[in-house]
Amino acid sequence: MFTMTKYVYSFKEGSKDMKKLLGGKGANLAQMTSIGLEVPPGFTVTTEACLKYLEEESMPSEIDGQMREKMDDLEEQTSKKFGDPENPLLVSVRSGAAFSMPGMMDTILNLGLNQDTLQGLIKLTDERFAYDSYRRFINMFGEVVRGIPHERFEEKMDEVKEQKGVEKDVELDVEGMKEVCKKYMELVEDIPSDPWQQLMEATKAVFASWNNKRAVTYREINGLPHDMGTAVNVQSMVFGNTGDNSGSGVAFTRDPATGENKMYGEFLMNAQGEDVVAGIRTPMQLEELKEILPEIHSQLNYVCKILEKEYREMQDLEFTIEDGRLFILQTRDGKRTPNAAVKIAYDMANENLITKEIALTRITGEQIEKLLHKQVDPEVDVEKIAKGLNASPGAACGKVYFDTDEAAERGNDGENVILVRRETTPEDIHGMAAAQGVLTSRGGMTSHAAVVARGMGQPCIVGAEELLIDMGREQFSAGNVVVKKGDMITINGTTGDIILGEAPLIEPEFSTEFQELLLWADDIRQMGVWANADNPNDARKALEFGAEGIGLCRTEHMFFDPERLDTVQEMIIAEKEEDREKALAKLMPMQKKDFKEMFEVMDGHPIIIRLLDPPLHEFVPNDKESQKSLANKLGIPVEEISERVKRLEEANPMLGHRGCRLGISYPSIYRMQVRAILEAAVETSNAGYDVLPRIMVPLVGNVKELSSIKEKVVLPVAEEVFKENGNSIDYKLGTMIEIPRAAITADEIATVAEFFSFGTNDLTQMTLGFSRDDVGTFVPGYLKQGVLSDDPFQVLDQKGVGPLVEMAVKKGRTANPNMSIGICGEHGGESSSVKFSYRAGLDYVSCSPYRVPIARIAAAQAVIESQ
Amino acid sequence: MFTMTKYVYSFKEGSKDMKKLLGGKGANLAQMTSIGLEVPPGFTVTTEACLKYLEEESMPSEIDGQMREKMDDLEEQTSKKFGDPENPLLVSVRSGAAFSMPGMMDTILNLGLNQDTLQGLIKLTDERFAYDSYRRFINMFGEVVRGIPHERFEEKMDEVKEQKGVEKDVELDVEGMKEVCKKYMELVEDIPSDPWQQLMEATKAVFASWNNKRAVTYREINGLPHDMGTAVNVQSMVFGNTGDNSGSGVAFTRDPATGENKMYGEFLMNAQGEDVVAGIRTPMQLEELKEILPEIHSQLNYVCKILEKEYREMQDLEFTIEDGRLFILQTRDGKRTPNAAVKIAYDMANENLITKEIALTRITGEQIEKLLHKQVDPEVDVEKIAKGLNASPGAACGKVYFDTDEAAERGNDGENVILVRRETTPEDIHGMAAAQGVLTSRGGMTSHAAVVARGMGQPCIVGAEELLIDMGREQFSAGNVVVKKGDMITINGTTGDIILGEAPLIEPEFSTEFQELLLWADDIRQMGVWANADNPNDARKALEFGAEGIGLCRTEHMFFDPERLDTVQEMIIAEKEEDREKALAKLMPMQKKDFKEMFEVMDGHPIIIRLLDPPLHEFVPNDKESQKSLANKLGIPVEEISERVKRLEEANPMLGHRGCRLGISYPSIYRMQVRAILEAAVETSNAGYDVLPRIMVPLVGNVKELSSIKEKVVLPVAEEVFKENGNSIDYKLGTMIEIPRAAITADEIATVAEFFSFGTNDLTQMTLGFSRDDVGTFVPGYLKQGVLSDDPFQVLDQKGVGPLVEMAVKKGRTANPNMSIGICGEHGGESSSVKFSYRAGLDYVSCSPYRVPIARIAAAQAVIESQ
Repeated sequence: MFTMTKYVYSFKEGSKDMKKLLGGKGANLAQMTSIGLEVPPGFTVTTEACLKYLEEESMPSEIDGQMREKMDDLEEQTSKKFGDPENPLLVSVRSGAAFSMPGMMDTILNLGLNQDTLQGLIKLTDERFAYDSYRRFINMFGEVVRGIPHERFEEKMDEVKEQKGVEKDVELDVEGMKEVCKKYMELVEDIPSDPWQQLMEATKAVFASWNNKRAVTYREINGLPHDMGTAVNVQSMVFGNTGDNSGSGVAFTRDPATGENKMYGEFLMNAQGEDVVAGIRTPMQLEELKEILPEIHSQLNYVCKILEKEYREMQDLEFTIEDGRLFILQTRDGKRTPNAAVKIAYDMANENLITKEIALTRITGEQIEKLLHKQVDPEVDVEKIAKGLNASPGAACGKVYFDTDEAAERGNDGENVILVRRETTPEDIHGMAAAQGVLTSRGGMTSHAAVVARGMGQPCIVGAEELLIDMGREQFSAGNVVVKKGDMITINGTTGDIILGEAPLIEPEFSTEFQELLLWADDIRQMGVWANADNPNDARKALEFGAEGIGLCRTEHMFFDPERLDTVQEMIIAEKEEDREKALAKLMPMQKKDFKEMFEVMDGHPIIIRLLDPPLHEFVPNDKESQKSLANKLGIPVEEISERVKRLEEANPMLGHRGCRLGISYPSIYRMQVRAILEAAVETSNAGYDVLPRIMVPLVGNVKELSSIKEKVVLPVAEEVFKENGNSIDYKLGTMIEIPRAAITADEIATVAEFFSFGTNDLTQMTLGFSRDDVGTFVPGYLKQGVLSDDPFQVLDQKGVGPLVEMAVKKGRTANPNMSIGICGEHGGESSSVKFSYRAGLDYVSCSPYRVPIARIAAAQAVIESQ
Repeated sequence: MFTMTKYVYSFKEGSKDMKKLLGGKGANLAQMTSIGLEVPPGFTVTTEACLKYLEEESMPSEIDGQMREKMDDLEEQTSKKFGDPENPLLVSVRSGAAFSMPGMMDTILNLGLNQDTLQGLIKLTDERFAYDSYRRFINMFGEVVRGIPHERFEEKMDEVKEQKGVEKDVELDVEGMKEVCKKYMELVEDIPSDPWQQLMEATKAVFASWNNKRAVTYREINGLPHDMGTAVNVQSMVFGNTGDNSGSGVAFTRDPATGENKMYGEFLMNAQGEDVVAGIRTPMQLEELKEILPEIHSQLNYVCKILEKEYREMQDLEFTIEDGRLFILQTRDGKRTPNAAVKIAYDMANENLITKEIALTRITGEQIEKLLHKQVDPEVDVEKIAKGLNASPGAACGKVYFDTDEAAERGNDGENVILVRRETTPEDIHGMAAAQGVLTSRGGMTSHAAVVARGMGQPCIVGAEELLIDMGREQFSAGNVVVKKGDMITINGTTGDIILGEAPLIEPEFSTEFQELLLWADDIRQMGVWANADNPNDARKALEFGAEGIGLCRTEHMFFDPERLDTVQEMIIAEKEEDREKALAKLMPMQKKDFKEMFEVMDGHPIIIRLLDPPLHEFVPNDKESQKSLANKLGIPVEEISERVKRLEEANPMLGHRGCRLGISYPSIYRMQVRAILEAAVETSNAGYDVLPRIMVPLVGNVKELSSIKEKVVLPVAEEVFKENGNSIDYKLGTMIEIPRAAITADEIATVAEFFSFGTNDLTQMTLGFSRDDVGTFVPGYLKQGVLSDDPFQVLDQKGVGPLVEMAVKKGRTANPNMSIGICGEHGGESSSVKFSYRAGLDYVSCSPYRVPIARIAAAQAVIESQ
């Protein structure tokens, strides 16, 4: 028996579960029809029909046949006839794929009009309305089916308006509209007069638009499949512009700005849907509909309740009132502000509309990010002068300063300051700390400025390559705009926008609903959420945000304190080992004090302390002046200083003499640090705290590096310290996995390491060959061209870096089943990366304190999604 | 039934196949005994006994028991008695593991002597001889068993010599020797007088030395297992110093310098073995033994033939003549010069002693390297002033110049020049080309200087960090030595030694035997051997050395020609796309000409041409002067030039805007190159040549990069060119695999690429996180401390980088079974890396022309070893 494929579904035949076949729009129209809402009748030509058409390159007769059958039904239901000059059935034709997809051809209204049916419509309504409908049809058919640019229609319209001496479309009288129709008909030659031919051409055009360039590019960038096709929805027209008893509007089932459980929306009487959006007349609030058409308002309220019950999500619906009768034309999940998202999710769970699990999946990392930081008021127009990478979220206003010392001074004096630099180095930290925000023209998402700003929870834009910074004249230009020292700007670290002047900001909110959601998340998640913190303030902040440990304490940040930097430089410049030891002896008590404070704050929580990581040249002065001053302090010739500094320079410092390589070349540095950690641990423990120190060796690529440091540094120092103190303490020794070779040989490394922490910043740099400081030169282009779908320093590259993470987890756990494994790269606070970490089997993620809430939610979402 | 393990083997019981159990020395002694050569009888305590002793931490009685049994045998065979004051049996005790292993305790001679047996020896020989033997015993026992430093014995000896007023040991009379014995006895307290106790203590000491620090470190560095143990050889003493009918010597079965099939060696009459080596008396040539003891000479000749037949290898043996009787004390494979290695391998195969396959395994890559370049005469003393990395083999003498232009000028005038720089950049190429050799104080094995020099086959030392170069004063210092501009030095690129003055050099030889071996290798090998060549001269050289294709033609090297550099800089500095296109249009014919010449030379052989790879800033001038001159040429302000140059600067250029990233940012550059390649190919093909062009895209990490370049550059340009010429040509498009992500996603990349070429330099940099330009800072230390066993830029890191290569081959071939895969990194010419490439399934290796012979041999060895 030959079974014919069903290519066309009436709205009565489908349901919301048939998105793949009917597209999102078609499935929702079917669903609404099936639950008894008043939807103008129609049918959907399936995505399969689209694929079949694209494959055969012509419309198979079986599809044509099935469409005719459904059109017969439609005529019956509406008591009108397609192409009947007396009582014409008009339809809309709309595309609708399973995913919303910008770039595909969209809508043709009033299809079925021609010179004959136009006369029928005139009789049934009025002449101006009919010609207005006709010109809309010609326009849309011309654009969608014939690909004639929108502007060409605008030109014609303008010609007529000028001719008639009017300014707005609505001011055109019947004759004007007739003239427009005439001009449009000249533009769109050979428009078929046969409505069926109109319909088939429109359907084919929508099908073909699946493969137009913009749609293909969109799918490529978003990783969507190319073999899904789009459906076509054919729906009988209803008109909101047939008189004072008619109207059109949009409604949200809840307030999309606040989340309040109350219908919200706008409408226009005697108008079509597009008029509401077009902004020519000012729409009214839905509240007012209560006065005008109380029954309709009440029906709409009822529809909202039904749709929410049906979809268990806040809906955004379009309606038309035709002569006092309410029609629902479309429904879809409504967009909302972050605050609303939180409130709606929380409320719906409490209303038992959804489970707590589903509530948790309803908030995204981006939304939480916005909840935690000041934002530029989106309602206000601002003058954007350039765009950079959105390195650290939140917005800040301040006066521009280029000199770090000056920025620090002004900032500490209470002025609002934005520090602007080509790039920042550790020597700029005091200026950054005193500023409201930081803006650089170089560097990527993990450049120094970006990392430090995120750690401080401070807005930051980096890699704004359009800016031409003239440090000498203390000004920058962006296009034609020149911004001088002291000028006020606003940076929007959430979007990367650089704004001239002081933009109005919205304060962050941290609602009780959000607090509740976080607690729900904690109940569900299985991974720990730790934070990266280098000082007691950050550690306290981390605990406040719910962190359960410190996954990364960068000891070098403690070196940059201006009081200490001198001694650090003395240590680095030392040519003789004994001079180095002398300087280290001065640093020891300082580091020890830092660690004691950290241990006290983190009482009962583990702290992973990473030994010195950056190349030494980051600590020494490059300019002659500072070199002279250092020379004076140390009492050695400046030439020697500059020679030594020069020797520290490297062609590619990221791949150079840093991390454990330093620890092996200069074991005394690591010895000092390990001693400081363990003495601090013993003493804090003696004072009654529960101290859980973990020592982490950076940049290990070879198990021998780790074993060498263990044997030559850690074990002997620990033995000494414990002996001296007559008391020992449990500590763990572990390593970063941040070099591809470390992941590849993780089984070997796991024989020595007690824990792994993925440094996905460096791992990304090396696996992809992207210098985090230099990606500004090509990554923006890659994102634009779709070579990359995300910045790999923001969103973990699961296809490229992911396999190394999985390999290391597997090999590491095979060699050492008790291995604790986490991630402490910037990705630890990004939702999709947190979810990946869960799937890869990590024990915890660690991120900057401000991102801990994101990680808590994402970790819960990971569990829910995997179920 | 309880089977007792056999821990002790008499020499009559073993054979050369029992190396693992008896150690190399013991197995060879047994073998010689079994084929009837006169070997002083003895026995071997096995490596298993060693392990048992180390495990139980005391000598198990079963081992003691078995040793006693064998000692009884020995007494019977020698008709002497161990510890008998009348006719004492004396033995030597020597360690001997399966692998030769420096650092383990070695030899004790004359064991069995004490105050009583000494008297017996005096009676049997003479008093001075006896005391001399005794003091030697005490000395060796003290060093080996008690760990007393050698110098302590020297001091005592010196005291006695001073006392007696003599200069040399041999001048001491009986009384002197007695005095030495007395002093030595005081030094080595409690030396057991019981010979058995002496033997047991000596045996235990040898066993224990297996685990001494130097031995453990040696095994770690060389990747040898720790669980093998060492054997102990106990052998009855024979004396070559009992009169004029006695003597000792060493013999090689063939001439170790030339390989000539003729016994070669040295001997001393009336002397012990150690005297021959000690250099106190000048030994005689073996030829002279013919005159003195013709029968012994003839016996020795016979022994050589027997040993060669037995071992099928040139042997290095030690012999002692005791009272006209020839004893063979040891045999082992003899060391030889590279030339000798080739001749011996070739001759032995022709003599049917070995197969051609075995002959091929008898030459190493290092030996071939030396055959191909000038060497410093090893016989001459030279003044080494510093050492760097041996970046490109061979030796060169010349006057030192620091300024590249001056070096170029002097060199082109015919002066021998050594160019000395901190590091080189592409702008130094003309100076390098005109110099005899290059010396830099920075950079690693794949730094610019190293890569270029190897490509030119020119001696080069890089990363000589001890040198303090003062470019201003045009001089460098190494320790106390100051070398000024114009001073003569010699660089030994084979060893890394920097030598003051003009050292005598040996010319390279390329014997017919070696040519024959290469042809044998070609018959056996299954992998292709290609060469990296950037210009027709190198290509011709490559063919001469036997290359079958060009695996890497770096187009950028063609950009550095001084005539072209201007246009290249113009192209890079261009702000507007049209200006860039203009400059590229000028470059096109130049590149096309290059390619045509290459295609002509490589008629019938494939050429892989890599599109532009290095970051653009490598091409632009950094100093103000050159910037000014460029500004004048282009007629734009110098500020603009320097701003543009500054913008090109990167923090880590190795991970920055280079490779295909440039091709995507500036498609016009790649378009020009692809057009030049294809036009050249079509025209050369029209002229009757067989042209096989392959276009290679560098630094791909993501299939979308390659497909973007394919779709937007290669396909359209090819279509244009073929249309314009009315003729098309077969070409292939492929990619480097040099970013870890490329290896990880090779299955995706293989859907677009037609061939892969592993760029193991970059792959090593990124997988290990080692910048090739900066490794000088820590890699030497890593090698010294044994963290690394080889420089990973010389020898492919099979454990770290290897898995990525294997993964990429597997994934690439799964996605595209016809994929051609090769390697074009520096490792393509290194023996062990070539062998790895074969095992990983590569189709070919490509290396600098001068290393092609090494690769041909290694590729054959790989096949032989895998059988």
